[in-house]
Amino acid sequence: MAGEEVSNKQVILKHYVVGFPKESDMEVKISNITLKVPQDCNNCFLLKNLHLSCDPYMRGRMTKHDRPTYVDCFKIGSPIMGFGVSKVLDSRHPNFKAGDLVWGMTGWEEYSLITSSQSFYKIEHTDVPLSYYTGILGMPGMTAYAGFYEVGSPKKGDRVFVSAASGAVGQLVGQFAKLTGCYVVGSAGSKDKVDLLKSKFGFDEAFNYKEEEDLDAALGRYFPEGIDIYFENVGGKMLDAVLMNMRLHGQIPVCGLISQYNLEQPEGAHNLLNLITKRIRMEGFLVTDYYHLYPKYLEMILPLIKEGKISYVEDVVEGLENAPSALIGLYYGRNVGKQLVVVARD
Amino acid sequence: MAGEEVSNKQVILKHYVVGFPKESDMEVKISNITLKVPQDCNNCFLLKNLHLSCDPYMRGRMTKHDRPTYVDCFKIGSPIMGFGVSKVLDSRHPNFKAGDLVWGMTGWEEYSLITSSQSFYKIEHTDVPLSYYTGILGMPGMTAYAGFYEVGSPKKGDRVFVSAASGAVGQLVGQFAKLTGCYVVGSAGSKDKVDLLKSKFGFDEAFNYKEEEDLDAALGRYFPEGIDIYFENVGGKMLDAVLMNMRLHGQIPVCGLISQYNLEQPEGAHNLLNLITKRIRMEGFLVTDYYHLYPKYLEMILPLIKEGKISYVEDVVEGLENAPSALIGLYYGRNVGKQLVVVARD
Repeated sequence: MAGEEVSNKQVILKHYVVGFPKESDMEVKISNITLKVPQDCNNCFLLKNLHLSCDPYMRGRMTKHDRPTYVDCFKIGSPIMGFGVSKVLDSRHPNFKAGDLVWGMTGWEEYSLITSSQSFYKIEHTDVPLSYYTGILGMPGMTAYAGFYEVGSPKKGDRVFVSAASGAVGQLVGQFAKLTGCYVVGSAGSKDKVDLLKSKFGFDEAFNYKEEEDLDAALGRYFPEGIDIYFENVGGKMLDAVLMNMRLHGQIPVCGLISQYNLEQPEGAHNLLNLITKRIRMEGFLVTDYYHLYPKYLEMILPLIKEGKISYVEDVVEGLENAPSALIGLYYGRNVGKQLVVVARD
Repeated sequence: MAGEEVSNKQVILKHYVVGFPKESDMEVKISNITLKVPQDCNNCFLLKNLHLSCDPYMRGRMTKHDRPTYVDCFKIGSPIMGFGVSKVLDSRHPNFKAGDLVWGMTGWEEYSLITSSQSFYKIEHTDVPLSYYTGILGMPGMTAYAGFYEVGSPKKGDRVFVSAASGAVGQLVGQFAKLTGCYVVGSAGSKDKVDLLKSKFGFDEAFNYKEEEDLDAALGRYFPEGIDIYFENVGGKMLDAVLMNMRLHGQIPVCGLISQYNLEQPEGAHNLLNLITKRIRMEGFLVTDYYHLYPKYLEMILPLIKEGKISYVEDVVEGLENAPSALIGLYYGRNVGKQLVVVARD
């Protein structure tokens, strides 16, 4: 194995994207790789990628930016990058050795030579599904945890609304809110997802936003006394309707604005006057600022998983060939739960 | 005087307003009033109004609301209400006696019978201009103080941007920022105002937003490293440009959105994605939540005024007849500094 030259299937970004991404913006191609870290590559390690994570923020990296932002654009002609779970095949890094399982920012390809260990965590707990490290035990889990508990300040009895509520982050926020003793309502884009919210994740109420002609009225129905915490994943018309239904001193942790990512001109929020009249705090956050809390999060979440007190639904696609359509599916809401791609089983 | 029936000039709202207010939405009429608190009116007091305050938020009270908000609509056919400085002529309230000077929410009329003392403060310090209690020593002063120091958390060296910077609140925020050791830039809508910002209030830089074709570029010029604190008074296109120029972990205390108050459909903020990528906290506030700090504020501000370390520019109009056009002028930026109306000198 080690030292052998093998073929390496890769998902390449062909060009920068405007509007909704299409499968034809990406291509699957085969290159070769030697399964050994080069002699002169200190602190490098070579990974076999097992599970790849499809996350909404990735859309931003497919756009050519004219000013710097928090993540670089993808490189045209290079593999797409994203979070994944991988096995170390060879290592010149002191923290990782062959056979280790890790999660972090890897390539959309079968094998990746990693030259910066910055984002990688060694996986210590393997008595849970390994794929969970793309979701509940990875970046989306930390996002839900940081956004709900650190950016928000939830109290028992708070009325919480979550959009994109069955997604990788939303399903956790809803369950965290229930564990905190909150009243929780979620919105999603299909009957199946709405059913899942109530039956699987324990949301008090849920609705299909696509079937509501008047989102303001829908929120008024579920929150006659208003919303204390809105966990914002979508933006656009939903945000405007929420602003009309917030309570005094409400909080809006802003995690994502997925409805806006593919628009050349975002729709815009028109009801910001409510920020003043209701003294609302709206705060954007990035999970990258909170990874120091990861050990604390694992301490909380692992027992909950093992005791069956928290559920996590994944939408699993097999094979790198299917990764582009899985990623694109996020922006049409085709995924039910956390979207991931299985590249290899071990 | 006391007990005498006199004529009482009043500014009445004729109908609810849509779009920009016009002088013809109001009328000046004369009624009569007896200068004595009626026997059965416990805790009431009768005021002679001296100075009336024109404040942007008043526009909201001229609109018919279909749902409750933080202040009631004005009553059609009744005098407009607003902050003012007044002299007590007669009182059945234990805290106020004839001859006292007070500031609080009074009527746009020569004499007002006050039945709720809620918003009134007795004026203890009269070695400063009395009109200051409509501005630097009244609601706008407390607004600047609470918004800058309590909602924001300014530090020495912070880069601060203030819109509507020569207005009743903005001129103070800029001076508070300078006292804190910040770099401060203000925007305003005329050359005179811009000159005032630099020459009188000590802003480091100032610009006329009406002369900038590209607000984003203008802000980039004054804040090559980005804005730490944006004190938001205007909304609309300025907010969108600011969002593009905020620094990581920047703060936006939202005090007002005057550019939007007369629009039937607000323009909307399109660049909210910056909230996430730059981890921005945007927080609306109302001064009403901070009046418990008024004694602390007076303790800070009175010496600064007396020592000449802070300036306050007022735009003074004489006579109730001219109050409607003064109020409307706010929404066209006709005022230079705090707009107030002198009804009587004592």
